[in-house]
Order: sequence, then C-alpha cells, then structure tokens
Amino acid sequence: MIKNQFYLQLRSRVYDIIENESYQTHFSKMFDKFLILLILLNVSAVIAESVDAWYFPNQHLFEAFEYFSIIVFSIEYLLRVWVIVERDKEEHPEIPHWKRRLLWIKSPGAIIDLVSIAPAFLNYFVTVDLRFLRVLRLFRLLKLTRYFAAMRILLVVLNKEKESFKAVVFILIIMIVTASSGIYVVENQAQPEVFESIPKSMWWAVVTLTTVGYGDVIPVTSVGKFLGAMITILGVGLAALPAGILASGLASELEQRREILEQRFRELLLDDEDMNLIRDRYKIDKIRRELGLNKEQAEEVIVQLLREKEYEQRLAEIDKKNYCPHCGEHL
Amino acid sequence: MIKNQFYLQLRSRVYDIIENESYQTHFSKMFDKFLILLILLNVSAVIAESVDAWYFPNQHLFEAFEYFSIIVFSIEYLLRVWVIVERDKEEHPEIPHWKRRLLWIKSPGAIIDLVSIAPAFLNYFVTVDLRFLRVLRLFRLLKLTRYFAAMRILLVVLNKEKESFKAVVFILIIMIVTASSGIYVVENQAQPEVFESIPKSMWWAVVTLTTVGYGDVIPVTSVGKFLGAMITILGVGLAALPAGILASGLASELEQRREILEQRFRELLLDDEDMNLIRDRYKIDKIRRELGLNKEQAEEVIVQLLREKEYEQRLAEIDKKNYCPHCGEHL
Amino acid sequence: MIKNQFYLQLRSRVYDIIENESYQTHFSKMFDKFLILLILLNVSAVIAESVDAWYFPNQHLFEAFEYFSIIVFSIEYLLRVWVIVERDKEEHPEIPHWKRRLLWIKSPGAIIDLVSIAPAFLNYFVTVDLRFLRVLRLFRLLKLTRYFAAMRILLVVLNKEKESFKAVVFILIIMIVTASSGIYVVENQAQPEVFESIPKSMWWAVVTLTTVGYGDVIPVTSVGKFLGAMITILGVGLAALPAGILASGLASELEQRREILEQRFRELLLDDEDMNLIRDRYKIDKIRRELGLNKEQAEEVIVQLLREKEYEQRLAEIDKKNYCPHCGEHL
Amino acid sequence: MIKNQFYLQLRSRVYDIIENESYQTHFSKMFDKFLILLILLNVSAVIAESVDAWYFPNQHLFEAFEYFSIIVFSIEYLLRVWVIVERDKEEHPEIPHWKRRLLWIKSPGAIIDLVSIAPAFLNYFVTVDLRFLRVLRLFRLLKLTRYFAAMRILLVVLNKEKESFKAVVFILIIMIVTASSGIYVVENQAQPEVFESIPKSMWWAVVTLTTVGYGDVIPVTSVGKFLGAMITILGVGLAALPAGILASGLASELEQRREILEQRFRELLLDDEDMNLIRDRYKIDKIRRELGLNKEQAEEVIVQLLREKEYEQRLAEIDKKNYCPHCGEHL
Repeated sequence: MIKNQFYLQLRSRVYDIIENESYQTHFSKMFDKFLILLILLNVSAVIAESVDAWYFPNQHLFEAFEYFSIIVFSIEYLLRVWVIVERDKEEHPEIPHWKRRLLWIKSPGAIIDLVSIAPAFLNYFVTVDLRFLRVLRLFRLLKLTRYFAAMRILLVVLNKEKESFKAVVFILIIMIVTASSGIYVVENQAQPEVFESIPKSMWWAVVTLTTVGYGDVIPVTSVGKFLGAMITILGVGLAALPAGILASGLASELEQRREILEQRFRELLLDDEDMNLIRDRYKIDKIRRELGLNKEQAEEVIVQLLREKEYEQRLAEIDKKNYCPHCGEHL
Repeated sequence: MIKNQFYLQLRSRVYDIIENESYQTHFSKMFDKFLILLILLNVSAVIAESVDAWYFPNQHLFEAFEYFSIIVFSIEYLLRVWVIVERDKEEHPEIPHWKRRLLWIKSPGAIIDLVSIAPAFLNYFVTVDLRFLRVLRLFRLLKLTRYFAAMRILLVVLNKEKESFKAVVFILIIMIVTASSGIYVVENQAQPEVFESIPKSMWWAVVTLTTVGYGDVIPVTSVGKFLGAMITILGVGLAALPAGILASGLASELEQRREILEQRFRELLLDDEDMNLIRDRYKIDKIRRELGLNKEQAEEVIVQLLREKEYEQRLAEIDKKNYCPHCGEHL
Repeated sequence: MIKNQFYLQLRSRVYDIIENESYQTHFSKMFDKFLILLILLNVSAVIAESVDAWYFPNQHLFEAFEYFSIIVFSIEYLLRVWVIVERDKEEHPEIPHWKRRLLWIKSPGAIIDLVSIAPAFLNYFVTVDLRFLRVLRLFRLLKLTRYFAAMRILLVVLNKEKESFKAVVFILIIMIVTASSGIYVVENQAQPEVFESIPKSMWWAVVTLTTVGYGDVIPVTSVGKFLGAMITILGVGLAALPAGILASGLASELEQRREILEQRFRELLLDDEDMNLIRDRYKIDKIRRELGLNKEQAEEVIVQLLREKEYEQRLAEIDKKNYCPHCGEHL
Repeated sequence: MIKNQFYLQLRSRVYDIIENESYQTHFSKMFDKFLILLILLNVSAVIAESVDAWYFPNQHLFEAFEYFSIIVFSIEYLLRVWVIVERDKEEHPEIPHWKRRLLWIKSPGAIIDLVSIAPAFLNYFVTVDLRFLRVLRLFRLLKLTRYFAAMRILLVVLNKEKESFKAVVFILIIMIVTASSGIYVVENQAQPEVFESIPKSMWWAVVTLTTVGYGDVIPVTSVGKFLGAMITILGVGLAALPAGILASGLASELEQRREILEQRFRELLLDDEDMNLIRDRYKIDKIRRELGLNKEQAEEVIVQLLREKEYEQRLAEIDKKNYCPHCGEHL
C-alpha cells in the first residue's frame, strides 16, 4: 500500500517535470534544456559525420554519442508513455490508462519521438543503406517542435488557411504545366536536348517561376524569350503568395486571439470590479496561455481595457449629470 | 404522361448528382472524384506523350485513353446542358429552358468544358500541327476549377483588387521600359550584341526585375552596373507587390465575410433566442456556404457570438440591479 | 460682349471635356482614349526606333509621327493652361486667373506634361546626343498616370508610409555596406579582381540581397560562402519588405476609406430615412469618387448598412416589447 | 555660487541641444544635421579607402579626416555622458547622477556610440589587422539609428513578433538541413566534389531556398532535379515569410497605435467639449509623439473623431424628438 502510494507520487512528480507545462521549476527547465541541447548535438553529429575528414578519425566517438543518444531518447519515450496517464486526470477520470497511452502514442508529437529512435533499432533487424539511415536521424530535429509555442499558432494558421493553400498549389501546378508545355512547344526545335520533353521542361518552369533562375536552362529563340518573360511576369508573384497568405493569416489570427483575450478579460472584470494585475495574475496567465499569447501582449490588452473602463465611467458620470435625478428626464 | 413524369424525375436526379452542390450523397461524391481523376490522368497523359520513350511503345494506349476521355467529357457536357434547366427552378420559374441553357453555355465554366473537348473534334475538319493540338488538351486542367471553393474567393479578390493590379502592371511596364532603355543607352557600346536594341534589352530587364537573374545577360561597365543595381533595388519589391496585394486582399475579404456571417447569425438569434448548433445546422450551413467559408470558421464565429451574448446578458442583469425597480433611478 | 460670352462658354466646355472628371460624355471619353493611344504609340515608337532594322527603312515615318505627337501634346498642354481657371471657380472665386494657372503649372501632372514635350524643343537650341534624347521621350509614359485612379491611392499610401520606407532604405544601405565590406575583407585575397574594393564588392551585395543572383560574382572560400549564406538569409526578407509594407498599407488605406464611406452614408441616412440607391445615386457617387473607391465597393457598403439598420430596428422593437408601456420599467 | 548656477544652466542648455527631442531650435537641428553628415562622410571614407587608386594619393587627407572624426565623436560622447543627468530630472529627482549616467552608458544607443570610437583608441594599445580595423569603423553607420523615428517602431514590431521569427528561423533551419541532407544523399555519387558532404551541400540549399540561385551548384541527376524542384517549391515562400510577418506586424502596430490615439483624443474631448486643433496643439502633439505617429495620421484621426461626434449629437437630437419629454415613452 505504501509502496503503491510512493509509485503514484513518483509518477505524478515525473509527469510534472517532463510533460506538465504549467509546472515550471528549475529542475524541469534544466531537463528541457538538456534535451534541446542533445537534439542539437545529434543534428550536428549527423552533419559532421558526412565530412570524411571529421568522421573517420573520430568514428568511435560518433558511435558512442549515438548509443548514448538512443538510450536517452528511449528512456524519455518510455517515461512519457508511463506518466501520460496523469494528464487531465481530474477532468476525465473515466478514461482508462491504456486508452490515454494509446491516444498519446498516436499523437503527432509521440510519432516524431518514436521515429527519432526507430531507425537505430531497425538496424539490428534489416540491413539498410548506412548513409540513408544516418540522414534519417535528422528527424530528431522535429522533436524541437515541442519547445516552440509560436510553431503551434503557425500550424493553426496553416490549417485554417489550408483551402487558400490548396488553391495556390492548384494555380502553381497549372502555371508549371502550362509554362513547361508552352516552352516545350516553342523551344523544342532550337534546343532539342534541354527541352526534349515536357517533364524535362518542367525543370526550367520550376526554376523560373520560383525566381531561383540558376541559368542552366534558358530560352534562346525570340519567341521563347517573349513567352518566358510573359510567364515570369505572370507567375513571379505566385511563388510569394503562400508566404503572403501565411503572414496575413498569422496577423489576423493574432488579432482574433487578442480580441478573444479582451472579451475574456471583460468577463473577469464583471466578477471582479477592478481587475488586479498582481492578485489575478494566475487567472490572467491561464487565459493568456490558452490563447498562446505572450505576457507583453496580455499586459497591453489589460492596460487598454482599464483605460477604456475609466473612460466609460467618466462618460457615465457626465451622462448622469445631464439628467434630472428626480424625474429622469434629460435636462 | 407517365413517361414524361419519369423523364422529369430522371433529369432532376441527374441534376442533383452532377450540378447540385447542396446534394451530397455517396454517389455524387464518387462521380466528382471520377471526373477529377480523369482530368488528372488526362494532364498526365499529355505530359507523358511528350516523352518519346514513353509515347511510341504505347501509342495505341494513349490514343484509346484519349478517345475514352473525349467520350466521357462530351457526355458530361451534354448532360450538363440537359439538366441545367433545374437550377433555380423554384426561384425563377419564368425563364424559359432555352434561355437557361444559353446562359449556362456562355458561363466561364461551360466555356472551359467546351474548349476541353473542342480541339479533338477540330482534328476531323482541319489539319492542325499535332504537337500544338496535344498541348491544347492541357486546357482540361482548368475543369478542376469547379472543385475548388477557395478559387472562387481568390477570383472575387482578384476582381475587387483589379484596379490595384492595373496600377501595378502600369508601374511594371514603366519600370521595364525605363530599365531596358536606360541599360540600352549605357551598355550598347560595351556589349553591342546583347544590348543591341531596347526590345532585346527588355529580356535583361524582365529577368532582373523579377529577380530570376539567369546570368546570361549582365551589365559589364561600371555605369551599367551602377544603373543595374539602382534598378534592381527600386524594382525588386515591385515583383512581389501583386502577391502582397492578393494576400492582403484575401485576408480582408475573409475578414469581411466573417463579419457578414456574424451579422447574419445575429439576425438568426433574434428570431430564435438560443441558436441551436444542431437544430439550426441547416440554416447555418446555408449562410456559411453562400459566403464560401468553411465549417471551422463558422463554428468559431458562433462560439464567440454566444459568449458575447452571455456577457451582455450578465451586463444587463448587473445594470438592472443598479437601478431602483420602482422609480428607475440610479442607486 | 457676345463674343466674350462665347469665349467663356467655349472655355467652360473645353474644361469639361479635357479636365473635368465628373463630366463623362461620349466625346470626353473619346478624347481621353485618343490621348492614351497616342502615348502608347509614342512609347512603342521609341522602343521600335532602337531596332536598326525597323528604324532606317521607316525613318521618315518615325519623324513624321514624332512631329505630329509634339504638335498634339503641345496643343493639349496649352489648352490645359487655358481652361484650368475653370477649376473650383465657384468654391474659390477670389483666386486670380494667373495664380490658378501658376498653381497648375507647378503641379506634378503639369510638370510631366511639360517634360514630355520639352526635349523636342530643346533640340532646336542645343545639340544633345540623339540616342539619349530619344529615350527621354519615354517620359511621356508618365502622362498615363492621369488615367489611373488606383495610382493616386498608391501614391497616397507611399506618402503615408514614407517613414517606414525611409527606415527600410536605411536598413538596406546598412546591409549593403556591411555585406560588401565583410565579403571584401574575406574574399579579397582569393579573388583580388572581383572583390578588389568595397565599391566593387557592392555589385555582389546588391545582386545577392535582392535575390537576383546572376552568378557572375560568387564567394569561393569557405569563410566567404559561410558569410555569404548568413548575409543572404538575413537580408533576403529585406528586399521583399517594401512590397509587403506597400501591400499592407494599401489594404489598410482601402479599409479606412471603406469605413469613412460607411460613416458618410450613415450621415446621409440621417437626413433621408431610407437611402434610395437610385434617387441618391448622385450624392453616393460624389462621396465614392472623393474617396477613390469603385462602384462595387460602395454598393457592398450600402447593402451591409441597410441590413444593419433593419437589424437595429428589429432589435429596438423587441426591446420596446420588453418594457412596460406605462411605467417604462423592464418586465 | 554664481559659477555653479552658470554650470547648471550650461548643462541644461547643452542637454536641450543634443539630447532633448522636444526642444527643436534652429541650432539643435543644425547640430543634428552636422552629425548626420559627418557619419555619412565617415562611411563614404571607409568605402573609398578600400579603392587603392583613391586611397594612396590622398592617404594624409583620409587620416586627417579620421582624426577629426574621432575627436568630434569623442567630444559628442563625453558631452552626452555629462548632460544625460538632466533627463527626467523633474519626474525622478531621487536617482543619483552616477546612476543616471551608468544607465545611459549601458543603453544600446550609448554602446553604439562607444563602439564607434573604441577601435581608433584600441589601435594605440594592440596591433590589429589594419583592413579589419578600418571596416569596423562602418559601425558608425548605426549611430544614424538615433535619427529615424520609424526604426524604433520597426524594432518594437520585431520585438513583438520575435516568437514568430523564432518559429520561422526554426523552420528555415529544418528546411536547410533537410534539403542539404537530401541533395547530399541523392547527388553525392554524380557530383562528388560539389556535394561532398552535408556542410558543402548547405551552400546549394541556402542559395536555392533564398531564391538567389547563382547557378554554380546545380543538381544534375533526374532524382536530384525532382528533389530540388520539390524543395524549391516548398521552401520558396519561406524566405519571404519574415518580410511578410514584419510588414503585417508593422501595419497592425500602426493600426493599434491609431486606435490608442483615438482613445486618448476621446479622453481629451471629455475634458474639453470641442477639441481645438490650434489651442490644444501642444497636448495633441505630446500624445502623438509618444505613440510615434506623424502629424498627418493624427490629423486624420481628429477629423474623423469630430465628424463622428457631430453625427452622434445629431443622432441624439433625433432620438430625443422621438420620445415624449414628459413621460419618457417612445412616440
């Protein structure tokens, strides 16, 4: 019984350290920083291994580091599987443990964690091309996603604007197909080897429409140059369109969240006449974190809100003065 | 009489399947997917045919596929002409059938459909260059426009911002003409063949101003390089301007539509105290589809609206408490 | 006396045709179109003259066309000077004629008109390099500015955002100076001819930071490539910044104008219970044109406004029902 | 005593001239312009010195100018340290002089000032590579930051959007690492020297993803070209993303400030029935300058505000008419 008690306490403590974002102690921060450093070192190692002059003299070191990393990441994965049952324990006590674990294992974050360690174990069962296997370890870079709050907002925006992106991709495909077909018809005679077929002409289309312009494939005939110029002018904006949509979407998402924050704070103000920035810090922080906004943005909204409230009170006072206090009529 | 009844029912059913967007059954979705697949295969075929190594061994296969496609697209076109009289039948019963059909035939979508099959029939009457004719089949790609909701919003934005685009095209023409004339005057002596005339210099101007920069034509004199650098710095933003305008326009169009949606939902709330997300699903969906917004966006607006309503009610209650219920005076 | 009357009437009529934008008859439109066509033909002529194969056989034709254009543009300029006194005659009758004319002559539009014809006359007094003189005629392209409404909004935005642009230009200069100095220090030894001095290295900096990337000057040392990559990553967004600022500024300017339009329409609604789209067309059009918005945008605002008004009326009715009609208390 | 009085007066006067932005006399403007000119001449000198043909014949001139600049900038720095105690003297009289000076010395602006002169003195103690030392003088360009108001707004936006930028840099690093690793695996066999290792492949990745596209390193295999095209299409928008975020952020920051300005002006209107643009010029200017907006923007807000106020008054009058003045009931 006492042993069980200890087991539950330990699990809860470990959960707080490695998964609970609201729990921010010195040790949990150190744990996060250690993992971030290990991931960065892993990626550096993969890059460094590709340089023969660095790899061959230090082969044993690289291998030892890889074994160490695999062990750490495996322990991390198993710990997360173990403690994840603590999440939302109070809110949803009815969900059984195995279901919580399965839900987590199927989440994108957990899949990234698994794929980060899987190739290393794969090596024991099947023989895979070593260079390809090494590069697969770069997948560990994605483990960093966990530590970027803004990435989540960006993903939300990407998801919200996905229809716009589909439309842009559709237009881009039309442009590439049209451009490569057009240049193929026009330049095929003059340069039969580079514009041999439409798929080969697509290299020119992609390189031109994205404005990379290596210069290895260029139209040489007058008609080809004219067509190329037209295509470039029309298509050039297109490549910049997704970035524009994403940037606008991000701005409007942040604007929307700021408005929701304002609305929530207004509600707080109803319960609590003068919202106290210090006393209500916990409530404010909870709302703010839910919306993924940072402290400066929240403070800005609060300051503005209190100022508006003061203005409205002054306005109400002036308004009251203008009415007869006995009959309520306007003077 | 019974036969006629059956004919009308059949036409109505076919209309629902191939044209009515509100009618979403398993079969109508399958029909759409089949057509999308056929279009994609057609485009792939055109691209593949240009590769000699793929075309010559499978010539008969490509031809058979083309015949099959032509037949399917022709039947699709005729069916659409036939059933289009069902559209808005209740709202405008006074418009005669031939007028409805003519209106549809003149619509951009129908013209795309016609041009997609026309070249194949053209072949029987006049002899056209085969390669050019093949590439014309790529026009079928535009048939996909029908299945992209976001494309329509993009076209609306393009239409709304058309004056800005005209201004940008005007500035772009000024830039290209000025840049090519300037570089022609300055570099003509040093490189008489590439900067032989203004039209020839325009190739450099377009390649530079769109930031493609192939590197085949480059100013070599100091004055030319200075002028080229100035032109590039000034003009470089210009190429990205249309994309920026389109992205901003898209963001503000979506914002505007979200506001209209909010207004419509507010109106719904007037008729119906607590808008029920499940019961009123049909009304909500109709408004949402009219505005071309997706389900997530509509839900977001509704949740926000209900929250605001609750807040206003709480505010009204607090307000009521502050007034004497007998004399109406402020306490 | 009668002669004077006729003179005044003629001047007023000519003013309406060539300057008054509110006055839109078939003839005034034809006049505008003729001038636009002449400007475009002039620019085409300048471009065509640079091609020896086109110029020498048709030299007389080109010269005749140039004489004709000079005469037309000169008459146009003189006419504008003559009739400009009619502008705002009612609003400001106190300004003397010579002052009105001087004001117009000093306006940017008038200066463009003058510079378009000046070089041709200059030719009679001093001997200038012919090729340079010809290219100067391209200035006539700017005469088209008069016919683009969106250009004026763009110029307003440019003016409003001028401080942002100054900051961007300042950063750009810092970037170019820093990049060229850095690459000069690093690559000077390896490539003493292309990175001979900082001014020479600036060519590389401009070509790289604007993402043109001709490929004629490239860092070859490892340190140079690393520095080049860093500079490119940091600087690449910068080149797109002015376009982004302009696009955002344009969007917010249009948004602001739409809001002012709404406010003005609301004021119209106060005077006139149900704003009649047909009866009040003139007033609406005047406001709309003042704000430089097109008809679709104005109509959208009106439709939205009427809908909101209807909603408010329904809300007011519901509100009234909730109060006792005798004591005014809330039920 | 009198001497001390004079000393304090002098310090206050010097403070007004070189640090106080609200104090704008002819002399203080001249002082600013002289410093701006000196900075620009310094930067030009550094650039010019790198050209051997300009430097060697005028070596003494360049050196004399450098000595002169060092003396002026040193005096400027010492003067600023001396007079900075005058800042916020009334608001915070309790802070001792040494603390004020230390605070200023640690501010970014003061550090720039110090670094601008430090290398020249460094030369006396240690022997540094002369060319590197010269280039360090370019740091003086940053001294100009003091004179660009828009730069401060841009820095505020950069700071506010820093989380978005971190996310973009993170994605960019993922893209570069992934792209270079992918192309290394695919092209290593075909081009063993250019794609020798992942770090070497990164040069291609950076040059391609930023759309610079020099053309010195290009994939040659079909698989490499396909991968390259995919990477380019996916990544191309990314490079433009920071500019988009910055532009959107700038627009929304300006919008927010305009709203705050409106709110502050509304508060002014409460104290003072009809805000007088001429009489209240000082108050308006103070608020405006605090928010970093220019005069046009402030005027626009005021005009709009007064118009709205007038509208509300008219609305209130109409509203009053519709109610019985005796019983308060709606007529």
